[in-house]
Amino acid sequence: MARRTYACPLRWSDMDAFGHVNNVNFLRYLEEARTDFTFAYAGAVGERASSAVSVVAHHDIDYLRPLLYRPEPVTVEMWLTKLGETSFTIAYELKDAPGAGTDNTVYVRAATVMVAYDLAAARPRRLTADERAFLADYLESQPVAA
Amino acid sequence: MARRTYACPLRWSDMDAFGHVNNVNFLRYLEEARTDFTFAYAGAVGERASSAVSVVAHHDIDYLRPLLYRPEPVTVEMWLTKLGETSFTIAYELKDAPGAGTDNTVYVRAATVMVAYDLAAARPRRLTADERAFLADYLESQPVAA
Amino acid sequence: MARRTYACPLRWSDMDAFGHVNNVNFLRYLEEARTDFTFAYAGAVGERASSAVSVVAHHDIDYLRPLLYRPEPVTVEMWLTKLGETSFTIAYELKDAPGAGTDNTVYVRAATVMVAYDLAAARPRRLTADERAFLADYLESQPVAA
Amino acid sequence: MARRTYACPLRWSDMDAFGHVNNVNFLRYLEEARTDFTFAYAGAVGERASSAVSVVAHHDIDYLRPLLYRPEPVTVEMWLTKLGETSFTIAYELKDAPGAGTDNTVYVRAATVMVAYDLAAARPRRLTADERAFLADYLESQPVAA
Repeated sequence: MARRTYACPLRWSDMDAFGHVNNVNFLRYLEEARTDFTFAYAGAVGERASSAVSVVAHHDIDYLRPLLYRPEPVTVEMWLTKLGETSFTIAYELKDAPGAGTDNTVYVRAATVMVAYDLAAARPRRLTADERAFLADYLESQPVAA
Repeated sequence: MARRTYACPLRWSDMDAFGHVNNVNFLRYLEEARTDFTFAYAGAVGERASSAVSVVAHHDIDYLRPLLYRPEPVTVEMWLTKLGETSFTIAYELKDAPGAGTDNTVYVRAATVMVAYDLAAARPRRLTADERAFLADYLESQPVAA
Repeated sequence: MARRTYACPLRWSDMDAFGHVNNVNFLRYLEEARTDFTFAYAGAVGERASSAVSVVAHHDIDYLRPLLYRPEPVTVEMWLTKLGETSFTIAYELKDAPGAGTDNTVYVRAATVMVAYDLAAARPRRLTADERAFLADYLESQPVAA
Repeated sequence: MARRTYACPLRWSDMDAFGHVNNVNFLRYLEEARTDFTFAYAGAVGERASSAVSVVAHHDIDYLRPLLYRPEPVTVEMWLTKLGETSFTIAYELKDAPGAGTDNTVYVRAATVMVAYDLAAARPRRLTADERAFLADYLESQPVAA
């Protein structure tokens, strides 16, 4: 059981005309954290077939506080709350880095359902045993069927 | 009681390296539909104070089918499912235009909780009577307190 | 000899924290105008092989006036200033639509060098006779070798 | 005389449906490098009035090689080639980090003319003495009038 953290750099242009990071761009930060997770996976099991990916089936996202651009990255903490045969659910907290003197402020909490997908065949697929073994390390509850 | 529809143009760059419209960009389409809604509101009641806006507090989004870039816009159909004192909930269906010969395929269903916000004071505010009157036309259930 | 015009929709999020359309997003508008041009080409000659594309080799862009978001599209007027064996140069004016009551304000002037490219082989290629015939209609000076 | 380097993180979504970093997003990387430069300036002279900014008047950009997403940042090297009374010109090379084992590949060369601008008054302004002193350190040729 473990959580992953990803230090996600902001871009100045992530702010909109209201002068805050635009709500849509937080989803981009979550994507970056998942990309980092996927690269770690690929490094762990060898490069998987490029057509065997996972795609987003659902997002649920709560905006708790406005975020302004700053040069320091935000921390995305991730773990799994479900691991099924063909899908899994990621939970996230997007917050300041520990020790950043800001009391570990949480900006966003979110969850994403990912579905294993065969891009070439354009249909869902089963997660491989390697994928499930990699993902299981981050699971904080019992696996349930998707 | 009414629904609004917004014909949302895609951009070629909304696709990602998988060759589909990227999941994050659907949230952008919802934002565009809300912007159109807001402009209609401003036209109806006169330009409101620029610091009295509404901000996104929550998104919930289901991805039902992949979407590829095409020159034709997608239709975003919107209505309200809640109208509170300081917040309201928008429901959306993102789909092909009626009569587009594609059987009205739905790509995404989503809901957004919007909170009335005073940008200058940086805090939530109550919806004005004008705002509530405008929004009430799109409500499909009884108003409930936020 | 002809010019093409493309009515390019803005997005509210194209503005940045300065409250103007961000300079980078004008390049996105030019891309959209080129995409529209490419679709017209594909319609004219039949769908070409998907790996025979053209890629951007150079941009040159002058920002003449700030642009604010508005629901009305901007007009991108395009024509060719060079047509070579393996490349061509597009000129653009990005402006208000004629008759929009704004005196045809020009926001941006730009030029792009496009190079014909074989994505599968990952190298430049010669423009086909069909491509050159299509492009030649928009050329306002004599063809020169790339 | 000095050059600044900025380690610019990529995002997976910077790639387009061709599977390369999209040409427009390179301009975003240049913006990030300028933002880093501006923050360094603000740190050097104290936070300047938020309405006294510089805006982009012109970009010139050459694409030399395709770039694929990778977790490692690209290096943006920047210096000045002109310093006028109201404007300055930045030159950039976007390349692999030294020692990255890739022979210091250059992906993009570009130049940007920036104009000092008073956002509140919505018009150009003169560069302050502090700004010129900060910028002069990065100038590789003699200052010329804008």
